Amino acid sequence: MNVKINFINDYNAAGHPGIIGAVQAACRNKYVGYGLDEETEKAKHLIRKLIGNDNAQVHFLTGGTQTNMIALSAFLRPYEAVIAPKPAHILVHETGAIEAAGHKILIAGEEGGKIKPEDIRAIALQHENEHMVRPKLVFISQATEYGTVYSLDELTALRGVCDELGLLLYMDGARLAPALVSVGGNASICDIARLTDAFYMGGTKNGLLFGEALVINNTDIGEDFRYYMKQRGGLLAKGFLLGIQFGYALESGLYFDIPKQANATAALLTGGLRRLGCAFAVETCTNQVFPIIKNEFIPALERDFLFEIWERINETLSCIRLVTTWDTTGEQVNAFVSRYGELAGVL
Amino acid sequence: MNVKINFINDYNAAGHPGIIGAVQAACRNKYVGYGLDEETEKAKHLIRKLIGNDNAQVHFLTGGTQTNMIALSAFLRPYEAVIAPKPAHILVHETGAIEAAGHKILIAGEEGGKIKPEDIRAIALQHENEHMVRPKLVFISQATEYGTVYSLDELTALRGVCDELGLLLYMDGARLAPALVSVGGNASICDIARLTDAFYMGGTKNGLLFGEALVINNTDIGEDFRYYMKQRGGLLAKGFLLGIQFGYALESGLYFDIPKQANATAALLTGGLRRLGCAFAVETCTNQVFPIIKNEFIPALERDFLFEIWERINETLSCIRLVTTWDTTGEQVNAFVSRYGELAGVL
Amino acid sequence: MNVKINFINDYNAAGHPGIIGAVQAACRNKYVGYGLDEETEKAKHLIRKLIGNDNAQVHFLTGGTQTNMIALSAFLRPYEAVIAPKPAHILVHETGAIEAAGHKILIAGEEGGKIKPEDIRAIALQHENEHMVRPKLVFISQATEYGTVYSLDELTALRGVCDELGLLLYMDGARLAPALVSVGGNASICDIARLTDAFYMGGTKNGLLFGEALVINNTDIGEDFRYYMKQRGGLLAKGFLLGIQFGYALESGLYFDIPKQANATAALLTGGLRRLGCAFAVETCTNQVFPIIKNEFIPALERDFLFEIWERINETLSCIRLVTTWDTTGEQVNAFVSRYGELAGVL
Amino acid sequence: MNVKINFINDYNAAGHPGIIGAVQAACRNKYVGYGLDEETEKAKHLIRKLIGNDNAQVHFLTGGTQTNMIALSAFLRPYEAVIAPKPAHILVHETGAIEAAGHKILIAGEEGGKIKPEDIRAIALQHENEHMVRPKLVFISQATEYGTVYSLDELTALRGVCDELGLLLYMDGARLAPALVSVGGNASICDIARLTDAFYMGGTKNGLLFGEALVINNTDIGEDFRYYMKQRGGLLAKGFLLGIQFGYALESGLYFDIPKQANATAALLTGGLRRLGCAFAVETCTNQVFPIIKNEFIPALERDFLFEIWERINETLSCIRLVTTWDTTGEQVNAFVSRYGELAGVL
Repeated sequence: MNVKINFINDYNAAGHPGIIGAVQAACRNKYVGYGLDEETEKAKHLIRKLIGNDNAQVHFLTGGTQTNMIALSAFLRPYEAVIAPKPAHILVHETGAIEAAGHKILIAGEEGGKIKPEDIRAIALQHENEHMVRPKLVFISQATEYGTVYSLDELTALRGVCDELGLLLYMDGARLAPALVSVGGNASICDIARLTDAFYMGGTKNGLLFGEALVINNTDIGEDFRYYMKQRGGLLAKGFLLGIQFGYALESGLYFDIPKQANATAALLTGGLRRLGCAFAVETCTNQVFPIIKNEFIPALERDFLFEIWERINETLSCIRLVTTWDTTGEQVNAFVSRYGELAGVL
Repeated sequence: MNVKINFINDYNAAGHPGIIGAVQAACRNKYVGYGLDEETEKAKHLIRKLIGNDNAQVHFLTGGTQTNMIALSAFLRPYEAVIAPKPAHILVHETGAIEAAGHKILIAGEEGGKIKPEDIRAIALQHENEHMVRPKLVFISQATEYGTVYSLDELTALRGVCDELGLLLYMDGARLAPALVSVGGNASICDIARLTDAFYMGGTKNGLLFGEALVINNTDIGEDFRYYMKQRGGLLAKGFLLGIQFGYALESGLYFDIPKQANATAALLTGGLRRLGCAFAVETCTNQVFPIIKNEFIPALERDFLFEIWERINETLSCIRLVTTWDTTGEQVNAFVSRYGELAGVL
Repeated sequence: MNVKINFINDYNAAGHPGIIGAVQAACRNKYVGYGLDEETEKAKHLIRKLIGNDNAQVHFLTGGTQTNMIALSAFLRPYEAVIAPKPAHILVHETGAIEAAGHKILIAGEEGGKIKPEDIRAIALQHENEHMVRPKLVFISQATEYGTVYSLDELTALRGVCDELGLLLYMDGARLAPALVSVGGNASICDIARLTDAFYMGGTKNGLLFGEALVINNTDIGEDFRYYMKQRGGLLAKGFLLGIQFGYALESGLYFDIPKQANATAALLTGGLRRLGCAFAVETCTNQVFPIIKNEFIPALERDFLFEIWERINETLSCIRLVTTWDTTGEQVNAFVSRYGELAGVL
Repeated sequence: MNVKINFINDYNAAGHPGIIGAVQAACRNKYVGYGLDEETEKAKHLIRKLIGNDNAQVHFLTGGTQTNMIALSAFLRPYEAVIAPKPAHILVHETGAIEAAGHKILIAGEEGGKIKPEDIRAIALQHENEHMVRPKLVFISQATEYGTVYSLDELTALRGVCDELGLLLYMDGARLAPALVSVGGNASICDIARLTDAFYMGGTKNGLLFGEALVINNTDIGEDFRYYMKQRGGLLAKGFLLGIQFGYALESGLYFDIPKQANATAALLTGGLRRLGCAFAVETCTNQVFPIIKNEFIPALERDFLFEIWERINETLSCIRLVTTWDTTGEQVNAFVSRYGELAGVL
């Protein structure tokens, strides 16, 4: 077991004790299989109420790659393609799962986490006949891979260009909870439900043992969705485990308390490092922080802390990634900031 | 919550309290992601020791359909086909997952749970050139869909025909634990590891929250297996949850205690019903029982018990399926037997 | 070059001289690519007129496996399955092309070329939820693999059961022309266009160099069909070659003259052999004949004739397949019948 | 029929009269099906002799998209990816056929037709574990999409980086013949066979009715290739049509005479336009020419000539594409050059 302070990711612990308690409490009950039980029904109801859409389909899946792959498979015909920004998780870090399901991903824009309406329009207009794929779905993440958040205005503009071009808008919400409670975001979950055709609410990275809740707002897509889930290995026999966890997290308020703690400690990190003169690769407002540090500091930091080296910028500097979570403490943040200060000679 | 006595399946409860306890105990620890942690390593080591093969690959997945689909995808080239018996789960109850991954399943033999060497040989010999698929893998289940168990002789004969024809032998072990501890079986897990190219040890139906352990014995297959897992949505971010559960179940002996209780109560059911003159569709020795009952008894039984109607045989009779599990009690069995006796007028 | 008399199949010659002449005549012309030329447009118009449906989509493809694979890919969603009779070409002789495109084929009925409404209904009713594929399309061949022909009544009954169950009816017409001019058939091409959702008119086995004409009658399916053609390698750059051939064959009447000669020589074969006491595996009325002969005759027949041994029935008898075509002559038929008579000792 | 002078592509005519003559001459012969005939065997032998490799596999297919899709499907495992330059035909103009077969294409380098070793190395080094696809095959075209040709040095360098990184090198030779006879190229077909793992020799764009000859030089890949061909609809029933055409084209020398005429008229076009002050988007040495002309000239040119507008550069200028072929004449070239001169006011 590692005794270093862990800033490496937000899925390094089994789950929040409250969640595990809820699973344990249900231990002697009996449930119908495959997510047709009452606990799952209750969790779906809570989500529909939360987003203000009684007609939305809700499905619980096990992980993010699985959710993206199954959802996009269901929403697209074989020749239809996805438009995604360059750092999109489906484009880089899901081992070609979308292509393995038969769909091309078209890269919009250059480096940087967010996609812009003009990037989408440019791609859509280049694809004009049956010798090319047909762009059909825009993939975004909230929060983005770089910890930033699309504003309500930005999302409204993306919806506009999607409507103009006949495209679907899909949001990967692996880290949706941190985005929703972020001081830097102003799009509510009702806005997101209204502006996207489908999105998912992440559980794995937000204190659940595992699980993601896919919400399909557009009634024109998602027909026979459970067939896709089953065919692609995403229909959990004990689906009630997902219903129990999401139901508890939402009913208790934990789903939104967890990311507040994560964001708060991330803000502490950002503030502390900035005061010591540290620069950042990107300004974030969620639970990921991307400081730029001298390469020579890295070995010393790695003695006490776990984190990812995001990018070797040059021979002198690197961008590292620090991720906070529901169990990150102020003490842990202070320990990192102090150590950095010592190394930088400013403390 | 249902207060009826539940014989409907073996995945109707969250998991054995011991398993949940193990997860809870690990709650405040931190782990490396994606199954690269020490708990997973330890569980793999326990399995390798159990089967007596230090070179076997072990991978933990979330469910049975996912395991079958990913394993067969990895073991087969696009034009290679599977041979499976008529009731095989992959053939009937996995929504065409294997075909969705591109592979034909060739049906061997007629109704009844087991495949025979001559069925395999007949199919293999019919497929002789590039206008047909090439049979490459024989799929069996232990226990079978009908609760029966392949004997050591039967498995040895299947291995023989596979060697003769250049085929792989794969075993779906969703209910392997009940088969291993069954009085009706004589093939040990070491025999199975020696005679198959790959098999999986079921967890979901054996008291775990979820999880299956795929064992790849043949070193010629399974290269880059983690790529397949990730690409098809089967690489759990918190893979350590699988390692913790399998590690605990094996180390504590629970993995083999759980099916003993399930088999014992199933044997009680069989014995009790037989003494009352009840016939069975198939003679089983694991945790599934298939009595043939009068259709007129069904509504009365359904008032107090949950079970599946397996097959409407004719206007008078049906075969039902009763499944027992680690928390089935003698009292529950007696209640069913008594109720049946009353209805049949023999008690 | 083989000087034996060739009864082995109906694609053993480049093409009818008329067809090749039409291609040659077009040799110095210039055409738009990918089937958007006037010759293709004209051929489509001729087919729409022939079938009496101005709204039908017509697409020209290169071969039968390609046509079936692309059509079924376009008509089905990933979890939807095909129902086909046991000897169906897609089931046995297309190397799993339909499964490689992701779709299960469900086998209806037992040996024998034709599918019956009750076979379809039985399969459809077994598939009731998302744990199983959803049957969606019935695949038949006209003429069948055994050279027989569905009557108008039979086709009407199949349409009926498809309507009842929400299924599509698709006809593989690799040998449609022989069926249409057969004395044993009474369903016209207008009937077929009215009763099926889609079918194809074979060219490769009917005197063209190559080519099949897919007709999509149902306006609810086939959207964006050219995308499927291109994506799966079926959109020929020089699509006009297909238009020229079909246009010429239809305009000149050759499309229906060719199979008349083939059927007539097949009937001569059947009559001649029957008069010598020969039995047949199946009664055919198109250009395939399936006599049952003594195994001991085969080597002698193979000295002068090319044909396929269809099935070794037992140690004494085999069923062989004799295929006639537009250039089979009465002399060739008489040569075979005489040789058989000598061997059988009846001449 | 269009009476404009046609520079639109190199597949606008049925085929060279010599080729059609060869097909016609074979008209009354009988052949074994599916490319197992002697004509095909002879053509394969001619190709093996031409490239100086007796062990190469040769397969004949119908078109370029089909050839690329089937070859790459056969050479790659599901998680393996292709590296291709930005304008690659498979990346842009084949409707996602490679992705539909399950493989991601990674884009190397920026605009411009050729890929460089450092582009390949950069991509390969970014892909380091099972969360990303594994780059496995480098796709190049000879001639490129822009009519340019890789030199022997360039190909040798690409081979070097492929060896270094364990990658396969595949060449799309839709326009290989023009490249081989180009004054601007110095890599012979023997060099290409030695330096690539597989490549194809285009027929469709080089005077054949249709057909491409895939050559697999690397004996470690391509096992069971005919299964892939059949499964994906690429095994032509009358495969002998491909053998006859390639056999004739190679034996008669036509395969290399045809592109000489095409290149010569392209060079005339380039020279003529350059003398009139016209600029070019790219310097080509094969049968494609990319002049940059004023947008205002386009309508006038379109009255007499067919050509493609390749790219609208800005409000004043466009790049157009002129393609020559075996039947382009000096008169046709002169007509275009004169008309351009008139419009440009320099004649």
